[in-house]
Amino acid sequence: MKKWRCKVCGYIHEGEQPPDVCPVCGVGPEEFELVDSAPAPAKPKRWKCTVCDYIHEGDEPPEVCPVCGVGREMFVLLEDVVQQLTAASVQNSTEGTSRAALDKISYGLYVVSSIKAGKLNGQISNTVFQLTDPPLRIAVCLNKKNLTHEYISETGCFTVSVLGQEQFDMVRNFGYRSGRTADKFADVPYVAGKNGCPILCNCMAYLEGRVIPDKVLDVGTHHLFVADVTGGMVVDERAALTYEYFRSNKQKK
Amino acid sequence: MKKWRCKVCGYIHEGEQPPDVCPVCGVGPEEFELVDSAPAPAKPKRWKCTVCDYIHEGDEPPEVCPVCGVGREMFVLLEDVVQQLTAASVQNSTEGTSRAALDKISYGLYVVSSIKAGKLNGQISNTVFQLTDPPLRIAVCLNKKNLTHEYISETGCFTVSVLGQEQFDMVRNFGYRSGRTADKFADVPYVAGKNGCPILCNCMAYLEGRVIPDKVLDVGTHHLFVADVTGGMVVDERAALTYEYFRSNKQKK
Repeated sequence: MKKWRCKVCGYIHEGEQPPDVCPVCGVGPEEFELVDSAPAPAKPKRWKCTVCDYIHEGDEPPEVCPVCGVGREMFVLLEDVVQQLTAASVQNSTEGTSRAALDKISYGLYVVSSIKAGKLNGQISNTVFQLTDPPLRIAVCLNKKNLTHEYISETGCFTVSVLGQEQFDMVRNFGYRSGRTADKFADVPYVAGKNGCPILCNCMAYLEGRVIPDKVLDVGTHHLFVADVTGGMVVDERAALTYEYFRSNKQKK
Repeated sequence: MKKWRCKVCGYIHEGEQPPDVCPVCGVGPEEFELVDSAPAPAKPKRWKCTVCDYIHEGDEPPEVCPVCGVGREMFVLLEDVVQQLTAASVQNSTEGTSRAALDKISYGLYVVSSIKAGKLNGQISNTVFQLTDPPLRIAVCLNKKNLTHEYISETGCFTVSVLGQEQFDMVRNFGYRSGRTADKFADVPYVAGKNGCPILCNCMAYLEGRVIPDKVLDVGTHHLFVADVTGGMVVDERAALTYEYFRSNKQKK
């Protein structure tokens, strides 16, 4: 009897042919590979480029990193980098170590914009994320002190402009200062969304949101706004700006 | 009179010396640069590597991309890549275009784990994010059908293991299948958090969470759980696995 392994989830099927559908993860027969009756080969070593984090598999590190071009001396065995968490160290975690761990969560960077009585405003946010589909719903977390929080609390409408990787200038324009003392849209090309809120013309994608009134959660210094997505579009296929990328490169740009 | 520009926010200060504190963004005098009385130089052209998204500034593209090594023929002017959103196109957005835009939000990948009556379970989640500090609070969004949702709803406790960039095997182990039919921790080294929930020994960082009972929000197919962070730690300094990285590389690994 032949054995077939699902390349997605590892499920093993026995039979002359792979199954039509993987009973575990649902993929089709094209995702199955024949399992040799010989024992599985030993796992290759994994080498990590210490400059760009590229992972190379093989007995030896590559002569040159194919991603960033540094030589083999910049590679280390991945198992030497990965630390093993111990039961004892878990007992020593503190608020300080927890805060450091929170820093390892990945985010993008967005301009969340609103309009009230003809006045436009926008702020930088990293906490925009999808909740459900269907219906298309997102959440946005905003500091109660921010002008955008005030506008959205009153109008229930906003837009999210997704920033491209090179738009450090927009982080500087919409972050670091308040719309109470600056007109942040003074020099920024924008168009009005269907809900009237401004969208950056050179964003890489945008979303329009309508807050669901009974789904605004007070979480302390911030409110978490749950919103139905009422519009949105991909503008172009640039890479998205992540918070990690901004942090690592803001001194260089 | 000299003019000084804040390199962080662009604020212009007039005086013999830079100010002690930027009145807009709060940075110190070391972040100010003297503004020449001559007009500002024209902005350099920006060239985008179409292979790795590296941005080069200069009149010409570089001979070789310093990040991925391809030649100058692979560079395009950034302004040719960036599309400008128009007021007319905004009117044409649909649920389909909105869904495509939602795909441009950036996420990490995490194993959210729980324990109930001695039974362990974990699932992959991309929606883990910080809400406030202080107090240290996070939110996690879970599908109501998932076993982890059932466990956390009953116990109020969970852990988040932040995955390193190379841990595709953990996505395959904890995703694509249900803890109702598989013991996902059978072959995975773990330690118990202070709250008893399992944490992957080879995660790069972890968090422990305690759900705030009156801050669980029903958002449709999912519940959004707001939790106080009761522990956490960085384990090592690997790069974090992002959803975008997983999606782009899962066929290769």
